[in-house]
Amino acid sequence: MSGRTRTADDPAPWVTDENAALLTDLYQLTMLQAYWREGMSGEAVFSLYFRTLPPARNFMLFAGLGAVLRYLERLRFHTDALDYLASLGLFCDAFLRSLETLRFRGDVWAVPEGTPVFSNAPLLEIAAPIAEAQLAESFVMNQIHVQTVLASKAARVVAAAQGRPVVDFGLRRMHGADAALKGARAYHVAGIEATSNLLAGRVFDLPVAGTMAHSYVQAHDREADAFRAFTGLYPETILLVDSYDTLAGVRRVVELARELGAAFRVRGVRLDSGDLGALAREARRILDQAGLPGVEIFASGGLDEYRVAELVQGGAPIDAFGVGTRMGVSADAPDLDLVYKLTAYAGTGRVKTSPGKELLPGRKQVFRFEQDDLAVRDVLATCDEVHPGRPLLEPVLRRGERLDAGRASLADARARAAAELARLPERLRALEPAAPPYPVVVSERLRAEQLRVRARVAGA
Amino acid sequence: MSGRTRTADDPAPWVTDENAALLTDLYQLTMLQAYWREGMSGEAVFSLYFRTLPPARNFMLFAGLGAVLRYLERLRFHTDALDYLASLGLFCDAFLRSLETLRFRGDVWAVPEGTPVFSNAPLLEIAAPIAEAQLAESFVMNQIHVQTVLASKAARVVAAAQGRPVVDFGLRRMHGADAALKGARAYHVAGIEATSNLLAGRVFDLPVAGTMAHSYVQAHDREADAFRAFTGLYPETILLVDSYDTLAGVRRVVELARELGAAFRVRGVRLDSGDLGALAREARRILDQAGLPGVEIFASGGLDEYRVAELVQGGAPIDAFGVGTRMGVSADAPDLDLVYKLTAYAGTGRVKTSPGKELLPGRKQVFRFEQDDLAVRDVLATCDEVHPGRPLLEPVLRRGERLDAGRASLADARARAAAELARLPERLRALEPAAPPYPVVVSERLRAEQLRVRARVAGA
Repeated sequence: MSGRTRTADDPAPWVTDENAALLTDLYQLTMLQAYWREGMSGEAVFSLYFRTLPPARNFMLFAGLGAVLRYLERLRFHTDALDYLASLGLFCDAFLRSLETLRFRGDVWAVPEGTPVFSNAPLLEIAAPIAEAQLAESFVMNQIHVQTVLASKAARVVAAAQGRPVVDFGLRRMHGADAALKGARAYHVAGIEATSNLLAGRVFDLPVAGTMAHSYVQAHDREADAFRAFTGLYPETILLVDSYDTLAGVRRVVELARELGAAFRVRGVRLDSGDLGALAREARRILDQAGLPGVEIFASGGLDEYRVAELVQGGAPIDAFGVGTRMGVSADAPDLDLVYKLTAYAGTGRVKTSPGKELLPGRKQVFRFEQDDLAVRDVLATCDEVHPGRPLLEPVLRRGERLDAGRASLADARARAAAELARLPERLRALEPAAPPYPVVVSERLRAEQLRVRARVAGA
Repeated sequence: MSGRTRTADDPAPWVTDENAALLTDLYQLTMLQAYWREGMSGEAVFSLYFRTLPPARNFMLFAGLGAVLRYLERLRFHTDALDYLASLGLFCDAFLRSLETLRFRGDVWAVPEGTPVFSNAPLLEIAAPIAEAQLAESFVMNQIHVQTVLASKAARVVAAAQGRPVVDFGLRRMHGADAALKGARAYHVAGIEATSNLLAGRVFDLPVAGTMAHSYVQAHDREADAFRAFTGLYPETILLVDSYDTLAGVRRVVELARELGAAFRVRGVRLDSGDLGALAREARRILDQAGLPGVEIFASGGLDEYRVAELVQGGAPIDAFGVGTRMGVSADAPDLDLVYKLTAYAGTGRVKTSPGKELLPGRKQVFRFEQDDLAVRDVLATCDEVHPGRPLLEPVLRRGERLDAGRASLADARARAAAELARLPERLRALEPAAPPYPVVVSERLRAEQLRVRARVAGA
């Protein structure tokens, strides 16, 4: 099984619609073959949720549904995948033939993208023949996890910036190409203004933005030459002033303004190192004294929500932020304990009883109860209960076909996030841990059902 | 620029060889147009390195070169990308036509994959016409960053396991599809035994492994039924015993052994929750007493190098580990301050002088000096110096064509990592911060050259 004799070029090291069925854990396929052998083709219900919020989060912002629905609609094993599976020596021909025709024909309910979500409440539920629902686990989790983790981090940065635009500079240090692409999408949901990532701009029709790099300044013999040339081509650009000495760089921008007179239309300067608060103040003073109050100050370099909040609260005259790595990897909470659990099979509720990992059986609904336009609590209930408040889970696929709620656009998701975040109590929108945390309660009927199923399982 | 009128389906939300040229920051393209307008087509040297090790790392394990070489060999703007760029209203037709024919024709030197690397030492250097080298920055960083971060984390987990196999279970919570795919590759370099990720197995010819999920056990009315059915199909499988009560699960495996007699060939049991050390001891005792000393114990659930070390050092009778999320996101150090900096243009050394971000000019070489088969220090030198020790940077592409050193296989990288890690001093291979850290020194000539370039820049 070594790579010794392989060329690096075939197959291409990319995930696409064509090979996504193989982006799964081996055990999903061995279990599928077992279900098939045992004639287990009953309907399974799987529920996607997280057990606890990361310590540094008061809510998560749900994102990534689009990628999941696309996957489920297209799910199939192409020849290359079947040949690979055959090569493993674990699967019989008849089972592999059954995979050829496997399609996702189940039902899916989900919370809309851009909804703030809390622990133990289902974000998505799948009811489908067990093979279809089981197989999807790894991909569904991978895509919802990355987008939800990154959207949740970005929502905090946006909140900290208090209305100042935040631009995504994360591409170079996000975890791989897909995180950079889907992350830019998740950031858009969370209220990020624009991304530097051109492919994300292309694929998701996002606003793109950028300034200039140190290398451009360095490649010129004089900083002033770089500023003059770049401004000639892009009159309304933002000039990066910290390659050598930040305040000297700002003064060069002032000189350029004198040189160009009315033709000077530079939009701003970017500070990317040093004490950003102090430098922003000095830069503002220099620009204002030179009669350039319209030249904005853009700050970047090692920023996250805490640093942005510190700058904003400290009154630093910064007009916009570029945020890269720490938002790009969600540095303080890079993972979420998202799980995808079987809650019913063949019409019977299922649980497990591993310590700390208990689960609620059956299909469910989440009701968000609000008072005075502020969220008060979520109630987890069985899917046929009615409780006060808005039901959050809505049908998005039925028998494998996309329903209207599954067609929400990215713009819808962004608008929803803005509206829903405004309806969270202040303490949840703060960067500090909310006390008390948001209450999520289990309905009496669901709790009784859980006890009933646990008792049945204990007797088995 | 909203997504309102777009369908979710075109273009596909995946990065591939075809669209990878657009996986770059907008400013790379605006700079490229500026270079083109200014007639700046001179050779640029860019150097990829990181400034500081994360606090919890004594070395990083270099990985990801394969993806970079593939990208550089195939780099081109296809029609869709050019149409998108045209739509931004920032680029003139003549420049876009020049992009049509842009290919990477430069030279690349790199440290071999699987080499332990340290701060400030170049991992990769590119010398190419400035447009080609500038454009590549975002992609090169993205791919080297994720693989190096994940390989480095995995090397620690492998070290902690002290020879016990470690299997990658990270797919579901790694950051997106590409991180899961490339991460499995990086893990292989670092000495991970196998991955659960089938697509990674397919693409990189990696050993794949897996057991069974709780859902399979839950879908059966009795745990014993699940064990019996799965074992019937996969006699040498590993049974997951913690769905309800771990030790009761182990006893069910014992019962199955009695039932099957000589036909019982189950390889092991997997513990996935609770106090893994205590449960492993109890499980071992139960299995041994039942005359099943050959049934192995496999542990998973919330593991990282610290927890694995604790279990191993505590003498827990665990034969292999499944490690997922915390290794999958490199939870304690999800990012590295990897940078890609211009160090020469048109034959002249370049630096910047932003505080804390100084750089060393020109093309360089890194010499690793060893004594008694143990690494003693790295020396950073100009590319034409000779120092004692092994030069680490070797040419991998020349004028855009792959050289022999650029064809190293993944098996080579894995073997190299094992050999090179064995040549690190003990204190660097420990999980705790090494005191003193590994010394990286700058040669006198390189330091003099840096001072010379800084003086020139200061006068400009």
